[in-house]
Formats: sequence, C-alpha cells, structure tokens
Amino acid sequence: MKAIVHITLKRGVLDPQGKAIGHALASLGFEGVGEVRQGKVIELDLAETDHGIAQRQVEAMCLKLLANTVIEDYRITIGDSSRP
Amino acid sequence: MKAIVHITLKRGVLDPQGKAIGHALASLGFEGVGEVRQGKVIELDLAETDHGIAQRQVEAMCLKLLANTVIEDYRITIGDSSRP
Repeated sequence: MKAIVHITLKRGVLDPQGKAIGHALASLGFEGVGEVRQGKVIELDLAETDHGIAQRQVEAMCLKLLANTVIEDYRITIGDSSRP
Repeated sequence: MKAIVHITLKRGVLDPQGKAIGHALASLGFEGVGEVRQGKVIELDLAETDHGIAQRQVEAMCLKLLANTVIEDYRITIGDSSRP
C-alpha cells in the first residue's frame, strides 16, 4: 500500500527557500507571483494492506521522524500516488 | 489563484534522501517499509485569475526554474490547496 505524506511549514514560520524561489521567479520575469512556500512530499511503500493500520503507522512515523511538529504541518494520504 | 507544483525524481533516478529516510524508519523499528522517495511541493500565490493562463504560466516556471526535467517529473494543480 502506498502512503503519501505532505509536509509544509506552518503559517507564520519563515520560509527562506520559498522566498528565494519567489525572488528567482521575479528576476526571470514572471510577474504576479505572491507568496511562495516550499514543502516536502514523501512517498512510502508499505507492506501493510489495511487502510486504518497504515494510516496510524504513517502518523507515528510523522510524529517520530518525518515532520517537526513544532514548525511543520503534515497531511497523510493512503493508497494514492502523487507521482506526475 | 493558488498553484501547487509537485516535483518528484523520475523512476530510476537514485534518491539518497529517500534511502536515508527508509533506513532511519527501519532503525526506529518501523517494519514493512519498502521504497521511500522524497520530493518537493511548491505553493505559489498567483495574481492571475484565469485557470488556463495560470496553468501555462506555472508550466513555464517549472521548465525554466522549478524542476530539473532531466531527472525530475512535475505535476501542476491549479486552484487547490495542499496545506494540511
């Protein structure tokens, strides 16, 4: 079963990487770009086949390792692919 | 208008960051975790209000700056929020 975790900085937390992207876009001539925020997306292949158990397992991974919950929010999607 | 860009490494491209996360999860006792891949998600606030124009604008940003299309795939979502 596939799990996708989106990790984004909480609103109000400074995002220098996002700011740098915004400045770079402006200097390349892209107009009308306001705030830019950068986050992470982590795709996990899980052996677990039960949706609920997989959700709880990934939730535990987020709290223990994947996200810094002081400054980051996370969102878990189970059984989906974010691959383009 | 909000635009979300998901950038992931193409299949077959080595992902050391993903590998490191996989090893860390294993050493924390999480079992049954197969391949782990890490990507980026970029949220842009656009002044543009037309869906089609915004899509083309972000497409150009991806090709010029946001994604390295040799090794990365990107997927654009317009008018949505990936914020948890």
